[in-house]
Amino acid sequence: MVSLTGKDILNGEQFTREEIDLIFTVADDFRDQLRDKPALNLMNGYVLAALFFEPSTRTRLSFETAMHRLSGNVIGFSSAESSSTAKGETLIDTIRTVDQYADIIAMRHPQIGSANEAASVANAPVLNGGDGAGQHPTQALLDLYTIRRERGDVNGTTIVLCGDLKNGRTVHAGVEVYKHFQYNLIMVSPEQLKMPADITSRLRGYGVHIRETTSLEDALAEGDVLYMTRIQKERFADPDEYERLKGSYILTREMVERIRPDLTILHPLPRVNEITSDVDSLSTAAYFRQVRNGVFIRMALIALIMGKV
Amino acid sequence: MVSLTGKDILNGEQFTREEIDLIFTVADDFRDQLRDKPALNLMNGYVLAALFFEPSTRTRLSFETAMHRLSGNVIGFSSAESSSTAKGETLIDTIRTVDQYADIIAMRHPQIGSANEAASVANAPVLNGGDGAGQHPTQALLDLYTIRRERGDVNGTTIVLCGDLKNGRTVHAGVEVYKHFQYNLIMVSPEQLKMPADITSRLRGYGVHIRETTSLEDALAEGDVLYMTRIQKERFADPDEYERLKGSYILTREMVERIRPDLTILHPLPRVNEITSDVDSLSTAAYFRQVRNGVFIRMALIALIMGKV
Amino acid sequence: MVSLTGKDILNGEQFTREEIDLIFTVADDFRDQLRDKPALNLMNGYVLAALFFEPSTRTRLSFETAMHRLSGNVIGFSSAESSSTAKGETLIDTIRTVDQYADIIAMRHPQIGSANEAASVANAPVLNGGDGAGQHPTQALLDLYTIRRERGDVNGTTIVLCGDLKNGRTVHAGVEVYKHFQYNLIMVSPEQLKMPADITSRLRGYGVHIRETTSLEDALAEGDVLYMTRIQKERFADPDEYERLKGSYILTREMVERIRPDLTILHPLPRVNEITSDVDSLSTAAYFRQVRNGVFIRMALIALIMGKV
Repeated sequence: MVSLTGKDILNGEQFTREEIDLIFTVADDFRDQLRDKPALNLMNGYVLAALFFEPSTRTRLSFETAMHRLSGNVIGFSSAESSSTAKGETLIDTIRTVDQYADIIAMRHPQIGSANEAASVANAPVLNGGDGAGQHPTQALLDLYTIRRERGDVNGTTIVLCGDLKNGRTVHAGVEVYKHFQYNLIMVSPEQLKMPADITSRLRGYGVHIRETTSLEDALAEGDVLYMTRIQKERFADPDEYERLKGSYILTREMVERIRPDLTILHPLPRVNEITSDVDSLSTAAYFRQVRNGVFIRMALIALIMGKV
Repeated sequence: MVSLTGKDILNGEQFTREEIDLIFTVADDFRDQLRDKPALNLMNGYVLAALFFEPSTRTRLSFETAMHRLSGNVIGFSSAESSSTAKGETLIDTIRTVDQYADIIAMRHPQIGSANEAASVANAPVLNGGDGAGQHPTQALLDLYTIRRERGDVNGTTIVLCGDLKNGRTVHAGVEVYKHFQYNLIMVSPEQLKMPADITSRLRGYGVHIRETTSLEDALAEGDVLYMTRIQKERFADPDEYERLKGSYILTREMVERIRPDLTILHPLPRVNEITSDVDSLSTAAYFRQVRNGVFIRMALIALIMGKV
Repeated sequence: MVSLTGKDILNGEQFTREEIDLIFTVADDFRDQLRDKPALNLMNGYVLAALFFEPSTRTRLSFETAMHRLSGNVIGFSSAESSSTAKGETLIDTIRTVDQYADIIAMRHPQIGSANEAASVANAPVLNGGDGAGQHPTQALLDLYTIRRERGDVNGTTIVLCGDLKNGRTVHAGVEVYKHFQYNLIMVSPEQLKMPADITSRLRGYGVHIRETTSLEDALAEGDVLYMTRIQKERFADPDEYERLKGSYILTREMVERIRPDLTILHPLPRVNEITSDVDSLSTAAYFRQVRNGVFIRMALIALIMGKV
C-alpha cells in the first residue's frame, strides 16, 4: 500500500510511479471538492512553517494557500533579513527552532542541499520549495500534473525544454519525476546554458530520446509541449553574461500560430520577456492554470504527508 | 435591488448613493454583532490576498483584520522586495498568479492606475488600497462613515481639508464619494500643494460651495470637521521642497480650544507633526475611531462583494 | 484568587509567586492537552498583533504559534521597514492604530521602555517580547519553567550565567522572576560585560548567593545549570570591541563531559559560536526543549490574560 505519511519531499528522484499517481489522484479529488466550498476540513489546528530565505511570490503563497484551503494555519518569513539568520544563526539552528513550532515545514533557501540538511534535523516533514540551483520537486510534480491534464497523458509527447537548462532547478528536479514516462525531449539553450552532461546521460539511461539544438523554431516544429524557463539573473556571477543571454529565446504569438498552433505552453514563472504577453490569451497557454495546479498538488502533498487522506 | 456582489472597488466615482448607504448599514450591523463575539462566521475557508507593494501598517492590517473578523484567511506580502517583482515580474503576471490562489484581492501599489490594471486581468474582485497619488476608495468610505457617525449627518457640514491637497489620494478619492451629499468645503494648503484645478471645478459642478485659503486658523473658525493630511515625503522629488513645506500647518490643542472647541478632527494617518499629541485626548479627536471604522467598512465591503450578506 | 485577566506583561518584576505557579500549571495543562490534538479551541476569532520592530525568528514565531495553537488569528509585521514607522509615525501612534484592530498585542522594539509606553496607550493587553537592552519577561518565564522541568525544582540549584551580562535583557528580566526562589548564582563574563552593579546588589538583597568570575571552567565545576548567552553584535557601538569579545566563552562537549556531565544547558538562542554543535546531542542540552516550552508559556499567558482559562 503506497503511503507518503511522515515523508520529506526533497527531490525528484524519491518518487515511485505509484506515489506520483496517488498524489495526482488526491489532487484531482481536492480540485473536485473545492468546486463547492472554499476549503476542506483536514488540517484544522495544524501549523505549516513557510520558511523562505529567498523572495518568492508564487511558491510561498502557493504553499500558504494550500494550507489554508485545508483549514490549517501558517507561520514563517519571506526573506532571510526578517529571520534570525541576520544575527548569524545557522540554518540548522533555525530549523531546529521552527521544528518546535510547526507540524510541517516548507522552505526555500539559496544553497544546494539545504532542504536535505533541514530534513536531517527536523522531526516535522520538510518540503523543499527550491534549494538554489538544486531541486524543486513540488514544481516538478505540478508541471507533470499540468502536462497530464492539458494533453491527457505524458506518454508519447514531445517536450521542448527551453532556456537556462544549466541552472534551472525546476528542470533538474523534473528529470527524475519524468523518468516514469515515455516521452521525447528537445533541449533548446545557448551553448553556455546547456543541460549538464551528467543529467543528459541519465535521461538517455531512462530511455528518453533527446535532441539538443540552439534553435527554438526548429524545436517547436516537432514539439507538443513547450516548457519555457527564465534566464535567472540571480544565478549569474557576471552581469554582462546575463545581459548577453537574457534575450536568447522569446516566444511570440506569431511563432506559435505559424509553427505549432496547438502547442501546450508551460512556464514555471516568473517570466521576464521570454514569452510575449500576446501569447497569454491563447487557449493552450497553460502557465496560469499551471500555477493553480500547484495549489492542488501542494494540498495533496501536505494532506498525504500528514496522514489526512 | 442594490448589490455589490462580484464588484471591484477601484475609485470613489463608482459608488451610487444607495451603495454607500448599503455599505454603511452593513458596517453598522457588523459593529453591533462584534460587541458580543470576536468574529463573524461569514468567510470561513476563503482567502484574501493582501498585496502591498508599498509599506503600510494601517491599511494592510485593517484589511487583514477585517478578513479575520469574518473568519477568513489571509496570504500576501508587505513590500515589493518580498515579492517576485524583485525578479522582474510585471504587476499583471503577479496578479494573474495570485488570482489562482485568492478569492478576493486587496492591493496597494505606487503607480496610478495599477488597481484598474489588476482588476482588468483578475477573476477575483480587486479592492484598491491606494494606487500612488491616485485613488484610495476604502479610505474615502471610512472617512465619510466617520463624519456621519461623529456628526450624525454629512449634509449641512462645513469640512476643512488641510495639507497636501495636490498629491493626497485620500482627498481625491473622497471628492467623488462625497458628491452625494451637500456640504461646504474649505481647502487649506500651501500654494504649491493646492487642489488640482480640475478637481476643484468638478467639486463646484457637484454643487459644493468652496473656499480656498492658506490660513488654517481662518478656516477653523467656520469649520465643523477638520480633515488634516500629512505632507507626504514619498511624493516629493525634491527633498528641500519637502523640508520647506512639511511644517506649514500644525494643529494644536490650544488652537482647537480657542477657535472651535467642538471641531471634529479626522486624519487618515500616519501623522508626522501636523497634529500635536495634546490634541489626542480631546473627545472630538476622532482619528483613532476613524481607524477602527476602517475595519467595519472593509468587513462590509468584503462580505458584500463575496455575496455573504 | 490569582488572576492575570486584562494584565500587561511588561517586565520580570510584576509577577507574584502565585502568578508564576498559575502560568506554569496552565502551561503544563496545555502541553498535556496538545498530545492528542493540534490546537485548543480557546481563542477562536480573536486577533493577536505581533509587532516586531526588530527581526526575530524565535520570539515572533513562538507568539504566532501560541496564538494558532489556541485557534486564534495573527496580524503584524516583522521589521520596522514594513511598517508606517518608515513614514515617520511614532510608536505611540502605531500602537493606538493597532489597538483598534487587535485583542492582544505582542511586540519587540529596540528601545528600552517601549513596551511600557505601548501599554500606557493601548486598551489591548501588551506582551513585551523584548525592548532593546531592557526586559524580556516571557523569555524569563520560559527559562524558569525549563529549569523547573529539567531539574524538578529551581530551589537549591546553582545557576551559572555566562556571556554578555551587561546588555542581556533576558538575564535582567530573569533576576526579578527568579527572586521567588532560593538558588546560587555564578556570573561569568568578560570585565567589560559584567552584570550592572545595581542588579547584583538587588540580587543580593533577594538573598541570592553570588560569585563572579571570568572563568567558565571554574564556574562549571560548581554549576547545575548553565545559562549561556550570545554576545549580541547589535548591542555594540564599536565593532572592534565586539570582535575582541565574541569568542570569550565557548562551551564544548569535551568541557561538559570532563567537568560536569549532568549539566543542564540552556541558551535563549540564537547562538553564534558560544556552544559548539557537538553539545546539541547531549541529553542535558535543553535549549531546543526550551524553545518548545516558550510556546506553552505564551499560550498560557495569552489564555490567562484574555480570561479564557
